[in-house]
Amino acid sequence: MTATDLTLYELAGANPNLRFSPHCWKVLMALAHKGLAAERVPLRFADKERIAFSGQSLVPVLVDRKETVSDSWQIAVHLEDRFSALPSLFGSHGAIPVTRFVNSWADTVLLPAVARVILVDIYNCLDADDRSYFRASREKYFGMPLEAVVADQPSRLTDLRKILLPVRHVLKKQAYIGGEAPTYADHCVFGMFMWARGCSAIELLEVDDPVALWRDLLLDSYGGLARSAPTVQRPGA
Amino acid sequence: MTATDLTLYELAGANPNLRFSPHCWKVLMALAHKGLAAERVPLRFADKERIAFSGQSLVPVLVDRKETVSDSWQIAVHLEDRFSALPSLFGSHGAIPVTRFVNSWADTVLLPAVARVILVDIYNCLDADDRSYFRASREKYFGMPLEAVVADQPSRLTDLRKILLPVRHVLKKQAYIGGEAPTYADHCVFGMFMWARGCSAIELLEVDDPVALWRDLLLDSYGGLARSAPTVQRPGA
Repeated sequence: MTATDLTLYELAGANPNLRFSPHCWKVLMALAHKGLAAERVPLRFADKERIAFSGQSLVPVLVDRKETVSDSWQIAVHLEDRFSALPSLFGSHGAIPVTRFVNSWADTVLLPAVARVILVDIYNCLDADDRSYFRASREKYFGMPLEAVVADQPSRLTDLRKILLPVRHVLKKQAYIGGEAPTYADHCVFGMFMWARGCSAIELLEVDDPVALWRDLLLDSYGGLARSAPTVQRPGA
Repeated sequence: MTATDLTLYELAGANPNLRFSPHCWKVLMALAHKGLAAERVPLRFADKERIAFSGQSLVPVLVDRKETVSDSWQIAVHLEDRFSALPSLFGSHGAIPVTRFVNSWADTVLLPAVARVILVDIYNCLDADDRSYFRASREKYFGMPLEAVVADQPSRLTDLRKILLPVRHVLKKQAYIGGEAPTYADHCVFGMFMWARGCSAIELLEVDDPVALWRDLLLDSYGGLARSAPTVQRPGA
């Protein structure tokens, strides 16, 4: 790890060691890719005023010396530019724009599909103070009670596995979305799986799915950072 | 245009000037991006034996002097490697693997969604000899008559426009999927629109959709190659 002055504000559950935000996981993987250590500060939804200095209310927020960067994509680009001598997060500078498509796909297609499986599990991981906020905001988004969103789990899992088709298609040709080694394109997608792994006991993938094999590789990458992260199943881990 | 010895075998309709294959359009845009001219040879489904020399039966097939390359992705990578001094098709060499994700998304998600709108229109563009092959193979794939696939056109258009969400998301931040200028990532997606433009009078996009604005830019790119291509509406063009 390189000595730095980085602080990352992350979403935490009722167990403050449980960090499950998919967007925070993108940044954790990005930091690990660069070999950077950061002070990790847990934050609950109810603690938003603690990141008011960032000019907005969402995590992740990275403080790099005197500079504050919010939004996982902006943080990734910041890390790439500021630590340009460290291993490239995007494979090459020219790959940044097209990697945005993978991030957009992960956020707009994969994230809602995962949410439709684990929404109640997320709720159950939250601190009591955060639950009413989460229920109100997510029920407004989905237009129904949390329990109704996840009610037909087999169908929601089938939908999710179908949605992963383009990832599966790529992984038949190359080990990672970024090529022979993981890049931020992989982190964007993998973050969604760390969200589920943190909160839920439901297995999203079939055992022989190439996406499951890829997920395993990423769980073990960077010294096993992701595999060793606390989950709701192993709260003391 | 650079003088070369390139020959591209393309799918053609009943009108031999009508070239509508989405995969051939990816290659036509790639050639134009490199500033390369190719002899364009029209082929019908019934003419497969004419590309048997390629060891497979699908277009596009590119013959580059004594080398034969089939599959649009392989052709794009071939052009990038062989004409490396010409403008990069991928923005940079490091962007090739992640661009494959865009291609896979276009082929596995966008292509079937466009097909569900224009399938009968494609059929109507084909030479009489090709129609029975097309009907049989596509009805097997979709599990229903061509006419049933496209029967509920308003719903299929709504589905298609939803599917384009990640593209729309990217285009709010940058002019092209590839960044400030088009790359093969754009060509992969744009090919699907040229397929529809060639065969069908149906407008796939709403007029104020950022994807429609992006499509306009690509229609006018490379000297207006795509905009000036013959379509079924303008068979004499």
